[in-house]
Amino acid sequence: MTIKILTLFPQMFAPLFESITGRAIDSGALNIEITDIRKYSADTKHFKCDDAPFGGGAGMILSPQPLYDAINAADPNHACHRVYLSPHGRIFNAGIAREFAALSKPLLLLCGRYEGIDRRIIDLCIDEELSIGDYILTGGELAAMAVADAVSRFVPGVLGNAQSAADESFSNGLLEYPQYTRPAEFMGLSVPQVLLSGHHGNVEKWRKEQAEKITRQKRPDLLK
Amino acid sequence: MTIKILTLFPQMFAPLFESITGRAIDSGALNIEITDIRKYSADTKHFKCDDAPFGGGAGMILSPQPLYDAINAADPNHACHRVYLSPHGRIFNAGIAREFAALSKPLLLLCGRYEGIDRRIIDLCIDEELSIGDYILTGGELAAMAVADAVSRFVPGVLGNAQSAADESFSNGLLEYPQYTRPAEFMGLSVPQVLLSGHHGNVEKWRKEQAEKITRQKRPDLLK
Repeated sequence: MTIKILTLFPQMFAPLFESITGRAIDSGALNIEITDIRKYSADTKHFKCDDAPFGGGAGMILSPQPLYDAINAADPNHACHRVYLSPHGRIFNAGIAREFAALSKPLLLLCGRYEGIDRRIIDLCIDEELSIGDYILTGGELAAMAVADAVSRFVPGVLGNAQSAADESFSNGLLEYPQYTRPAEFMGLSVPQVLLSGHHGNVEKWRKEQAEKITRQKRPDLLK
Repeated sequence: MTIKILTLFPQMFAPLFESITGRAIDSGALNIEITDIRKYSADTKHFKCDDAPFGGGAGMILSPQPLYDAINAADPNHACHRVYLSPHGRIFNAGIAREFAALSKPLLLLCGRYEGIDRRIIDLCIDEELSIGDYILTGGELAAMAVADAVSRFVPGVLGNAQSAADESFSNGLLEYPQYTRPAEFMGLSVPQVLLSGHHGNVEKWRKEQAEKITRQKRPDLLK
């Protein structure tokens, strides 16, 4: 799967080249292409990409020209599903991650900065606004990395063991059961006896009950 | 404000040292301390920090010992508000960001990896589980960065202009109004006339109406 990311801070994306997503990039299961918006500024002296908002107010707005040209350079035929990371968007979740991973086209993630981007770019170029949650980040970069990471987990060949994505929280509508590893006793706390029993059926039953109980306690909205 | 982060991937946090949070660190308004969990492994040969889950199943679980020792080294007297980034937690939002920024104690963010951490560490050491949204990330690192970034914006001295945090989406219960910058016409689309009028009162009125309209259309749940 190809994910194209447009940003003023390309160096921020180093974390995607670590660990599981890093290995998926190395293996070819995942292709991350990062475009530096600043290179497309018509201001070839200072590469300025922002300007004061019309109507006044604090902060700076990303100008339409560099965004428009960067988007059209990265995706000249609008072959990508183009997403702008923004608090105005629908709220990202595991279902949307799975949906994006199953798209037959590349994903394009546009990262805003400062007080946001000129509204006309959304009207002209963007298919969908997407939010990773009801909080404000300095820029769309962390949001784009979260989306790229969560989507990648549903791309075939990214996770070593296909079971991992199926078992984890949300994939079956429940939070995951509690996990334990060695030692069997730590600081006076013991691992639940059933997990040491070696009885596969009882382990499965306990895990299912725990997942349901935890979801009922912590996120009853997921059970509706 | 001090934010302590515990992780197996300290190098992933480079993005926090960029841009607005980077400048806040330089100015002293923000202090980010990163602890490498691996250094606390009792396995001084391979620095192993994970093990197979009791009861079987895919993936690896972070072992209790390195986590326990790393937490107690970073926060020996439990002076921090200790948060574990996990899909089991309450859902992070701008209100919680503001709450954390107003705490009189440092924030400690523990990042999990793989299939999660041994449940006993949460029982023994953690004050609160926190989720940045209903999706699964490869590790808690991107979540910790999102929390650190969103919280920082409410810390005095981090944003250049105090008005910026007050105006943005969620801070007044509404999504932000659309923003425009020069040129006044771009690809056939004009900036709304009122923003060019220079009439401060009309601009404010239009922005308030737009914010209400957009919130009603896109996120009616925020108006409840």
